[in-house]
Amino acid sequence: MSKPYVRLDKNDAAVLMVDHQTGLLSLVRDIDPDKFKNNVLAMGDLAQYFGLPTILTTSFETGPNGPLVPELKEQFPSAPYIARPGQINAWDNEDFVQAVKDTGKKQLIIAGVVTEVCVAFPALSALAEGYDVFVVTDASGTFNELTRHSAWDRMSQAGAQLMTWFGLACELHRDWRNDIEGLGTLFSNHIPDYRNLITSYNTLPEKQ
Amino acid sequence: MSKPYVRLDKNDAAVLMVDHQTGLLSLVRDIDPDKFKNNVLAMGDLAQYFGLPTILTTSFETGPNGPLVPELKEQFPSAPYIARPGQINAWDNEDFVQAVKDTGKKQLIIAGVVTEVCVAFPALSALAEGYDVFVVTDASGTFNELTRHSAWDRMSQAGAQLMTWFGLACELHRDWRNDIEGLGTLFSNHIPDYRNLITSYNTLPEKQ
Amino acid sequence: MSKPYVRLDKNDAAVLMVDHQTGLLSLVRDIDPDKFKNNVLAMGDLAQYFGLPTILTTSFETGPNGPLVPELKEQFPSAPYIARPGQINAWDNEDFVQAVKDTGKKQLIIAGVVTEVCVAFPALSALAEGYDVFVVTDASGTFNELTRHSAWDRMSQAGAQLMTWFGLACELHRDWRNDIEGLGTLFSNHIPDYRNLITSYNTLPEKQ
Amino acid sequence: MSKPYVRLDKNDAAVLMVDHQTGLLSLVRDIDPDKFKNNVLAMGDLAQYFGLPTILTTSFETGPNGPLVPELKEQFPSAPYIARPGQINAWDNEDFVQAVKDTGKKQLIIAGVVTEVCVAFPALSALAEGYDVFVVTDASGTFNELTRHSAWDRMSQAGAQLMTWFGLACELHRDWRNDIEGLGTLFSNHIPDYRNLITSYNTLPEKQ
Amino acid sequence: MSKPYVRLDKNDAAVLMVDHQTGLLSLVRDIDPDKFKNNVLAMGDLAQYFGLPTILTTSFETGPNGPLVPELKEQFPSAPYIARPGQINAWDNEDFVQAVKDTGKKQLIIAGVVTEVCVAFPALSALAEGYDVFVVTDASGTFNELTRHSAWDRMSQAGAQLMTWFGLACELHRDWRNDIEGLGTLFSNHIPDYRNLITSYNTLPEKQ
Amino acid sequence: MSKPYVRLDKNDAAVLMVDHQTGLLSLVRDIDPDKFKNNVLAMGDLAQYFGLPTILTTSFETGPNGPLVPELKEQFPSAPYIARPGQINAWDNEDFVQAVKDTGKKQLIIAGVVTEVCVAFPALSALAEGYDVFVVTDASGTFNELTRHSAWDRMSQAGAQLMTWFGLACELHRDWRNDIEGLGTLFSNHIPDYRNLITSYNTLPEKQ
Amino acid sequence: MSKPYVRLDKNDAAVLMVDHQTGLLSLVRDIDPDKFKNNVLAMGDLAQYFGLPTILTTSFETGPNGPLVPELKEQFPSAPYIARPGQINAWDNEDFVQAVKDTGKKQLIIAGVVTEVCVAFPALSALAEGYDVFVVTDASGTFNELTRHSAWDRMSQAGAQLMTWFGLACELHRDWRNDIEGLGTLFSNHIPDYRNLITSYNTLPEKQ
Amino acid sequence: MSKPYVRLDKNDAAVLMVDHQTGLLSLVRDIDPDKFKNNVLAMGDLAQYFGLPTILTTSFETGPNGPLVPELKEQFPSAPYIARPGQINAWDNEDFVQAVKDTGKKQLIIAGVVTEVCVAFPALSALAEGYDVFVVTDASGTFNELTRHSAWDRMSQAGAQLMTWFGLACELHRDWRNDIEGLGTLFSNHIPDYRNLITSYNTLPEKQ
Repeated sequence: MSKPYVRLDKNDAAVLMVDHQTGLLSLVRDIDPDKFKNNVLAMGDLAQYFGLPTILTTSFETGPNGPLVPELKEQFPSAPYIARPGQINAWDNEDFVQAVKDTGKKQLIIAGVVTEVCVAFPALSALAEGYDVFVVTDASGTFNELTRHSAWDRMSQAGAQLMTWFGLACELHRDWRNDIEGLGTLFSNHIPDYRNLITSYNTLPEKQ
Repeated sequence: MSKPYVRLDKNDAAVLMVDHQTGLLSLVRDIDPDKFKNNVLAMGDLAQYFGLPTILTTSFETGPNGPLVPELKEQFPSAPYIARPGQINAWDNEDFVQAVKDTGKKQLIIAGVVTEVCVAFPALSALAEGYDVFVVTDASGTFNELTRHSAWDRMSQAGAQLMTWFGLACELHRDWRNDIEGLGTLFSNHIPDYRNLITSYNTLPEKQ
Repeated sequence: MSKPYVRLDKNDAAVLMVDHQTGLLSLVRDIDPDKFKNNVLAMGDLAQYFGLPTILTTSFETGPNGPLVPELKEQFPSAPYIARPGQINAWDNEDFVQAVKDTGKKQLIIAGVVTEVCVAFPALSALAEGYDVFVVTDASGTFNELTRHSAWDRMSQAGAQLMTWFGLACELHRDWRNDIEGLGTLFSNHIPDYRNLITSYNTLPEKQ
Repeated sequence: MSKPYVRLDKNDAAVLMVDHQTGLLSLVRDIDPDKFKNNVLAMGDLAQYFGLPTILTTSFETGPNGPLVPELKEQFPSAPYIARPGQINAWDNEDFVQAVKDTGKKQLIIAGVVTEVCVAFPALSALAEGYDVFVVTDASGTFNELTRHSAWDRMSQAGAQLMTWFGLACELHRDWRNDIEGLGTLFSNHIPDYRNLITSYNTLPEKQ
Repeated sequence: MSKPYVRLDKNDAAVLMVDHQTGLLSLVRDIDPDKFKNNVLAMGDLAQYFGLPTILTTSFETGPNGPLVPELKEQFPSAPYIARPGQINAWDNEDFVQAVKDTGKKQLIIAGVVTEVCVAFPALSALAEGYDVFVVTDASGTFNELTRHSAWDRMSQAGAQLMTWFGLACELHRDWRNDIEGLGTLFSNHIPDYRNLITSYNTLPEKQ
Repeated sequence: MSKPYVRLDKNDAAVLMVDHQTGLLSLVRDIDPDKFKNNVLAMGDLAQYFGLPTILTTSFETGPNGPLVPELKEQFPSAPYIARPGQINAWDNEDFVQAVKDTGKKQLIIAGVVTEVCVAFPALSALAEGYDVFVVTDASGTFNELTRHSAWDRMSQAGAQLMTWFGLACELHRDWRNDIEGLGTLFSNHIPDYRNLITSYNTLPEKQ
Repeated sequence: MSKPYVRLDKNDAAVLMVDHQTGLLSLVRDIDPDKFKNNVLAMGDLAQYFGLPTILTTSFETGPNGPLVPELKEQFPSAPYIARPGQINAWDNEDFVQAVKDTGKKQLIIAGVVTEVCVAFPALSALAEGYDVFVVTDASGTFNELTRHSAWDRMSQAGAQLMTWFGLACELHRDWRNDIEGLGTLFSNHIPDYRNLITSYNTLPEKQ
Repeated sequence: MSKPYVRLDKNDAAVLMVDHQTGLLSLVRDIDPDKFKNNVLAMGDLAQYFGLPTILTTSFETGPNGPLVPELKEQFPSAPYIARPGQINAWDNEDFVQAVKDTGKKQLIIAGVVTEVCVAFPALSALAEGYDVFVVTDASGTFNELTRHSAWDRMSQAGAQLMTWFGLACELHRDWRNDIEGLGTLFSNHIPDYRNLITSYNTLPEKQ
């Protein structure tokens, strides 16, 4: 009767980055901005590292919502980029859904701003169509904790799996031996404590 | 096996505002009063904006519980207004249930004070009768976070969907193109950060 | 598929107060002691007010765990009082289970110290035997919030309904007209904000 | 040896509103935005209510910092308005200092964004020149609590008095009999709990 | 250069209870209401226990501010009771100041609602006139922590000593041998943890 | 439809301690380090006390992740110790799974660092293979509360039972009469409040 | 005009441990019990490590307050031990003051339970007599943060220096070369993160 | 009698970066690691931007404390770098003091790990020798908030000014017109909200 364990598979997963726009980011107050910026960029880095098909979408980027954060745009120069003309739920945009279908993947990893709208709406729609949905809770932000927990509850009860970017990376990688250097670099770039462990280890006199 | 995605439909939704009375509001301590007042008025504004049938109800308003907050009363001058003679669960009041039925809607959006009683009781009763129930968590208040989370758990496990007023507005609106001005004004009036984005955008020298 | 709404019925409910002992209370750190004392005594008062059969039980009260808080003992002089010789789960004690069965009630309202043991164990056992279980979260205490939320999750997933004493009183009472004075006094004695509302109302010059 | 009690005197006080600009406001994360907006507007209202000479100043308002929040601009149409060409410390701007001197007041009430810069710098400069300085802590915002407390310590140690807008209004008013209606309206507009008290009181049946 | 240690002396101390009114208490949100009620009543009990001259004062008690909490009124039936006609700072009321002078005491212990006004204003005035002032921080309440800390800073910098009711009782009592029973009862009535210690100790089998 | 009550049975339970390594521990920031160290050692002590088969595993212990904390290593000198060559999910390591199977137990108690990876992955895998899984939430640590609650949700929804070490010990012990001294010592060593109760009780003059 | 830097000197410092009794410890709720126990024992260890004359004192240890925690008693078998017959301020006890004078030290390091009484009273008395006083804030505990900060303010304003045990140890030691092993062991025993650093360093393959 | 306003002057200020070492950083738990890393690097960037003489120092960098974070080392390749052989207070190291004197500056800006030792000790020593000391509170970290506030109190009372890196940069820069581009870049690199403002502004269609 419990939700079954759907394990992330890097060959069957696509990433949806929804509305990480410079204006909308000023609405995010449930995560500290330094940490949130790091989480979003880490999410971008891992999508790139694992070669996951990634879809970018924005809402009204020429108005107050502002443009997509430039770092994401630069990171995925050839990714499908859907500037939605008005649909709030990205899943209501045909181009977006087509781009998802074109990936041929069944596991959808979603992050966005704000959690209860830009993440929850497409997550719920995708679940309703039979996709496995993984919400990246720490690369998604919203107004406050009350809103966050309401949104989490709605998505979890509908079948979504709540994860954070670090767990995502670990579940996708599966075995360090696939590439120690690569994953270590990803972690070192986005986890100061991990970076410190590596620096301490590498600069020991015995190692030089 | 998961809770299915019941999507809000402005043509099939009614709003129940339960016991937002000036005395009872002094019991609300899980949300800051400035923020809570804003959320409740935003909830009223959106009900009005989307033209959702709205039902007001109070408990003992001539006693210590105090009258309905005047802003809500003014906003819905012709809404059904049920001053309950004693029933704690509004659903135990026949006039209230009749008013709900008279709307002909299947989706009920509920907010009230206090969460675990005035919201949870009618929410659970309505669920038991087959309605789709959406609890507006940030326009509902109670004594403290411990109480809030107990109430959320009881309602969510019984099938209610937990939402906040912003998500509600977005899910009801669906597409900005339906009315950019109207929804923008609603947000500008109740989300200071959004208002600032709009002001910055509109007062740029290039725009003038 | 959701948990159905089991509504509290004062004719079918019994109260279990588990291990509110003076020594064990020093372990409770997830609720402020002033507030917790008030909640436990409010719980006792409401059990008495609604005439619910109440069962008291303790664990090793002659040792470091200390005696039952005297107020509860005085409040229920003729209640079944099971000083368990060693069973940690009260449900493992035959006298306790017999006392529960003797009430003839199907709805069990449980509060105790500490939440994840003295409340959760009998709650889970009672659920397994088909009882409807209502956990009084704010009259139950434990070491910290991490422990509390683990315990809540385990009990809720097993079918328990999480409530607080105020919601309990309201659901049992159903209609203020059953006794305005009595319920008002109960609330006035245990909710300072409510007492203030009543005092303000009653001492207005116009009322005198 | 202690700091003497300098009591606010509405005939000897001026208000400095520093850099409440729509862009800069997105940096404020030590106070919830709904509450902060309310505090700033309350500050404006009280300056107007007591007829205090008020000076507005901004930093680069045609760039990313954004324009002054329109409500303040509208509230003080004839107030000195110094759009500083570059000085970060408003006190480094001669026009600003001249405007302060022109008020002929010795007590300066300062609020602004961000606390440790736009408030602290002119506060420290004014103290150094012998003014009595009152910092309105809740109408001033900054990045986080760590920054706030560092800034408070620096200003307090230098002789500033830390106050909030409500205390300010009370100290300026001195006696309710000077104008019950006016001050009551100010409080009702900006303190939901106070508004509720007044509404409860005024709508009692006995009063009508 | 430091503030000297002024030690409380029960023969030279008077207590000022300022504006603990049922309406104003709904404004207090920096302390939980159960705890705050307990602290205020403990303050009353200790004033009575040590026989300290106590002065009660209120502001507009026939309006929305509401009457003095009845427990305090009953506790000090013959205390000077100054219902101020309008002065916000109690020290601006001649009767109040006269009542203080009539006590002949030099040490003033002040508690009230709200901290930054009803406590801080008379505290600052009394300090300016040479009294030793002790602020009872936990029997004084206000809107939020930001306001509290601003008010504490202002009072402390002006020479007030910040204390809580328990420290006050201990400093006044000086030696348990003066009356073990009496002080123990005071603590047992207002400190649940202390009450539990005493109950555990007294009900040990060996003691009976 | 609810999760059934699977009761821990000391004859059918095994303990898995995953990646409590000195380097990885610097990543744990959702629990205070003093408390976390105590919880992990308490977990080790109880496994030993109840004679539960225990399996230790580590990830890259010769690199930056660091060695297993020495206390655990000393406590279980003959336990299966699987230094995984690269598998992130311990369940992907055949030796580990074989060690689990070799215990012949059906109930798996899991703790580790970090929660969403080293605990969640084997927990989900074990659930998928039909084991009963008990997650020791307070002997498992991770980056922050957001991550913790995402991981809890995923594990709980998949069927895991969330517990803490104290509840675990109580459920395994069942009856104090099985060994009062032993369990009391375990609690005294890891719960300062409990130790204090025991010390107070034992050092009473009457007891000596 | 600022407080001068009085630097701790291990040849001129004595330690006063006031009322760390098993009953009183149940009152401490401003620090987690695991952490507080660790801090108090660290304080004892460092007093012993630096050979500082240490004085123990208790209040009513045969009553509900309970005995001194046994670890401290064992650690200082020959230290002056003053079981005060009733004086709440230890400085009112002649034996205690004499024991302090007998040390011949001018710098007094004080820790105790509860902060605002057992620490603050002797601290203020000692300051008044010209001693340099160092309060060990993290080895002193009290009811809550509000009380703590009131007590800190009173002591700091009177001239006490607020320190924690780690800073104390570092200031007393001055130079690691005086004894690397000893101080390292002290830190390793009481700072889990430090212990982990040392373990990681020492167990590197290159080191073996 | 108040602390005078010592205004930072880029021509008279030097920066001391004390013990930002990879091992010691694992002890810092009063600031989130993502934010703390950002603050320290921002501190380095601003020292470089304003061309302030900067001194680096470490404690036992070949042992468990670990090496200086590489970014700082790279940023100041020719800065005095004092690897202290054992002195805990950097001011006890003659080379360090000489390096400070060699700068010829009177204003010392200090940041380090941990706050109460590596920052507080040299800050207090420098104050004692007549320097003006500015503590960068958000580029200094320690075990927890209790320790932080004890350390802040000690330093502030001794005459240090508490600042954060942003205030520091603003006070040093004084006027945007000195270099808009440079300071804007510094802020854009270290304040995500500011970067977003700039990005929104620069990418407006009207601007392109």
